[in-house]
Amino acid sequence: MKLYDARTAPNPRRVRIFLAEKGIEVPTEQVDIVSAQNRSLEFRTKNPMGTLPVLELDDGTTIAESVAICRYFEETHPDPPLMGTDAKDRAVVEMWQRRIELEVFVPVAQAFRNVHAFFKGRIPQVAEYGEVCRTHAQQRFAWLDEVLADRPFVAGERYTIADITALCGIDFGRVSDIRILPEQVNLARWHAAVSARPSAKA
Amino acid sequence: MKLYDARTAPNPRRVRIFLAEKGIEVPTEQVDIVSAQNRSLEFRTKNPMGTLPVLELDDGTTIAESVAICRYFEETHPDPPLMGTDAKDRAVVEMWQRRIELEVFVPVAQAFRNVHAFFKGRIPQVAEYGEVCRTHAQQRFAWLDEVLADRPFVAGERYTIADITALCGIDFGRVSDIRILPEQVNLARWHAAVSARPSAKA
Repeated sequence: MKLYDARTAPNPRRVRIFLAEKGIEVPTEQVDIVSAQNRSLEFRTKNPMGTLPVLELDDGTTIAESVAICRYFEETHPDPPLMGTDAKDRAVVEMWQRRIELEVFVPVAQAFRNVHAFFKGRIPQVAEYGEVCRTHAQQRFAWLDEVLADRPFVAGERYTIADITALCGIDFGRVSDIRILPEQVNLARWHAAVSARPSAKA
Repeated sequence: MKLYDARTAPNPRRVRIFLAEKGIEVPTEQVDIVSAQNRSLEFRTKNPMGTLPVLELDDGTTIAESVAICRYFEETHPDPPLMGTDAKDRAVVEMWQRRIELEVFVPVAQAFRNVHAFFKGRIPQVAEYGEVCRTHAQQRFAWLDEVLADRPFVAGERYTIADITALCGIDFGRVSDIRILPEQVNLARWHAAVSARPSAKA
């Protein structure tokens, strides 16, 4: 088994934190996104989308998409549960994972992709859309601050994959100057708590 | 239990097809998106994001996000499996579900949202980004045509949630004139097959 990783990118970090919370160690290989190694023909035999991370199983099966890789390890290493504990809870956790991904993580990433010099010439950039996404993300930070007023974690009483997605999305916002505001005390409290877990450094 | 539905929107259709494939009947209530009933304060007590569909359980729990609702029914009604059959297969199906959502469904939806008059004044529209998404979606139709050259369904030998996401995304493309091209014979064969299933009319 091997995990294709990129230290500086936000999606691979989601899987590294997930694995650290589970106490699982997987051999990893760094793929250089600066030189576009992930877009090479060789790498695209593993993932035609050219995205990271990718998990390669011993039988040669390759699993792309951070949440799909997390799903694999949730199934094979159920403890501690990070994607819910029963049918209802798994649906609730998935709802929060998706909300955070679609409303926070993706807008943060799109604010970066559509504006930053790194993506110039790599994708068609639309700066005006990047600004729309920046504003959207900032509004969702404020919403998440309200959500966290009466609960310790994003999906409720327990740390889950939704917290991992939120942490990676929010931290990635810094490069686009999207930050937790001083008045967002619940979000700041949560951010300090999840950042203090050893997994945050994975 | 009650499903809040909107007949003309693509995300609720994903859940209706999923339920039809499982043979599950759930009482539904239509929410009028044209008059923005889904944005009302009352509806947002059920889902603060204001999106549809939403599943309300008998204990009052509300589950938003189409895939989270599908997850609930996959757990409570495992047969036929639509989200994978074991750890590896569940990860593979989730990978394909996400690829299709992020590479086909979302670009198709964004092409609509950023250009169509329906969203004028409802969201900040960026027409140039809508065109980027239209082109992206068309490229991904071509990629999906290649994927389907050697398999009957998106994730392999079995009909899964990835086919449902693909069908709803591709059909929703028509309103933005994003269509399967005559040379995309594999995609057309697949589309005819999944459209012929009774669930497609749900």
